[in-house]
Parts: sequence; structure tokens; C-alpha cells
Amino acid sequence: MEPLQCGTSPIVGFRFSLHPMTSDFIKVIKGALNDTDTSNVWMHTDDVSTVIRGKQIHVFNVAKALALHTAKTGEHVALSGTFSIGCPGDSTGDVFLEKDDVLLNTDSTKQYISSQFALYPMNNPDYMAVIYREVDRAKQLGLFNDSMHYASGIHGDIHEVFAFYEEAFTNACSDEHRHLVMTVSMSINSPSHGGA
Amino acid sequence: MEPLQCGTSPIVGFRFSLHPMTSDFIKVIKGALNDTDTSNVWMHTDDVSTVIRGKQIHVFNVAKALALHTAKTGEHVALSGTFSIGCPGDSTGDVFLEKDDVLLNTDSTKQYISSQFALYPMNNPDYMAVIYREVDRAKQLGLFNDSMHYASGIHGDIHEVFAFYEEAFTNACSDEHRHLVMTVSMSINSPSHGGA
Repeated sequence: MEPLQCGTSPIVGFRFSLHPMTSDFIKVIKGALNDTDTSNVWMHTDDVSTVIRGKQIHVFNVAKALALHTAKTGEHVALSGTFSIGCPGDSTGDVFLEKDDVLLNTDSTKQYISSQFALYPMNNPDYMAVIYREVDRAKQLGLFNDSMHYASGIHGDIHEVFAFYEEAFTNACSDEHRHLVMTVSMSINSPSHGGA
Repeated sequence: MEPLQCGTSPIVGFRFSLHPMTSDFIKVIKGALNDTDTSNVWMHTDDVSTVIRGKQIHVFNVAKALALHTAKTGEHVALSGTFSIGCPGDSTGDVFLEKDDVLLNTDSTKQYISSQFALYPMNNPDYMAVIYREVDRAKQLGLFNDSMHYASGIHGDIHEVFAFYEEAFTNACSDEHRHLVMTVSMSINSPSHGGA
């Protein structure tokens, strides 16, 4: 049996909600979906959230593109969700692992975002060390915003922030501890951000 | 040394974001904060989220009251957040554990909500059994809505849903495995809910 390689072989999922703080929220969400190429991920929306599943690179690529396209409306938008890999109860949708590695969303428009994240490596006695290591890495990258209860603040340009999250997700997963969860909550175009 | 009793002795926290899908979002959030008695919890708001900390009963009571008061505006509102207890990095704010057990928010107005939750008992080899047990309990209570990747759907009247979440949080924590995380995502007054 080949070793399971986190972030390459197993399916990654992101269950999220996109919240435009405007009465036109449906238009903003539909517009972002329209502007994002989601053909490399499996996607399902219900009355509370949306889930996308597939190769890690495509899941993060689609998540970033959705955030970026909603940001372009200029509306205050929040994106919160949970990245997961290796859940023991996981099953269907693996067909999307056969997609190639060509990213379909490549818009590199700059956009400031402020966010918070938490890592939950499941069934791993050393999980706090894993978390502290990634927080230290954010500090070294200049993306660390603030310490706080239950999360860490990460901010900067959307492309750097998403690159950090994808790498943190890769780093926090291991062959021995395959089930990893990462929650993220992002705020875009917030009136609190001023000129940031 | 006395045993640590989950849900009674240690401090519970809830880091959340409230997202009214209206251009008047600031007014809706400020109104809900104004109508909710938060004096039994420590509270701090930053540019992405708000955290409340204190005794478990007060943290859940304040969370429910905030959701209920925003619901009363009739606007489509989303509430997403993470309940935590026993985080090894946890520290300040314990003064609020000396509050008595009298609930300060007792509005029992009925309100349908649809939600999703996930339990993450940290460093617990039997964590999947803990999760399945609580999902089964939701089914028995008639609150279970749907199975899905990475979460479970819970819906019904806001008071029953919050009672379920508080009990699930209590049940999933144990003296042996003290660090517990529970994510919840709620949708209120959604156009998707129709007459539900």
C-alpha cells in the first residue's frame, strides 16, 4: 500500500458560506460564481453553505477566486468556512482527483483581506506544536495580524494570504495524522479596515 | 487536585461573526447588541469577529439572544462561529466564572433556523464515536436535517437548536479529553427556507 500523501492524493474539501452585507446579496453571490471557473471541483450548495471538493490546489484556487470576485463588487463581504482532509467518514466525489494540475482561475488583482484561522489536527497528541509552528511562519512572512483567543489573525494581499493558508494546510497534515481541519474567516472591504 | 468538569468549571468561549445580508448591517448588529444583556460574559470585537467568554450557560445564552434579536429584524442573517473549551493555550478572563447561573436573556419568541455543526474533540482517539453519538441524538430529537460532507444539518426552533448544541458540547467533552471545539453555521430568514 502506498503511503497516503496529504494534500496530493486524498480529496480536500472546503465547506463555506459567502456573506455579502448588502440587500443585493443574491446578485453578488451569483456574479462571483459566474466569474469563477469551478469545473475542477465538485460543488454542492444547500440552504446554509456550499461545499467544494477535489484536489487541494483546485479547492484553494476556487475558494480564492470566489473571494476575489465578490471583493471586486466593492461590497463588504465575509467568507467563513472549513477546509478538511482525511475525515474517516469521507467517501464520494473522488473522480475530481483525476483532474490535471492546471489552475483555472489566475486573476492576480490585488485585494487586502483581514482574516482569522485555526488549525485542528485530529487525533494528534502534538497538535499544539503543529499550530504554533504555522503561527510562527505567518509572523516570519509578515502576514500575522494579531493574537487572540481560539484563532490567529492573518492579513495582507489575498494571494499571499491564500498561499499561506494552503501551505499551512499542507504542513499541518502528516501521514500519521491524516485528518486535518482548518477554519478560516475572512473580512473583505470592511468599513473597519479604513485605508488598509 | 479536583477533576476539571467540562462545561461547569472551565471557561467556554465562542468566536463568531454575525452577517446581516443588508446594506444596513451595522444598524442590525448594533441593535442586536443593544437588545442583548452581555454583562455575564467577557466580550471583545475586532475587524473580523467577536469573542465572548465565560460560563458555558451564559456563553450559549448570549449567542442565542444575539441570533434571536437579529432575526427579529426580518433580514436574512447568518451566524457562524466556533465554541471552544479547554484549549491548552487558554488564559485570561476567568473572572467571569464567578457570575451566578441566572440567565439574563429569556426571550422565548419562536424562530425557525437552519444550521450546520461539526464537533472536534481534540487529541481523542475515539472522536468519531463522540461525533456519531451526537448526530444520533439530533435524529432522535427530530432536529436532524441532512447528512453532508464535513458537517451535519440541524434545524428547528432556535431554542431547541441551541439547547441541542449546548448539550452536544457538554456531552462531547470529557475529563480525559478536555479540549473541545464545535463549529456552527446558522442561516436565519433565508429566502431558501420558504415557509419553513
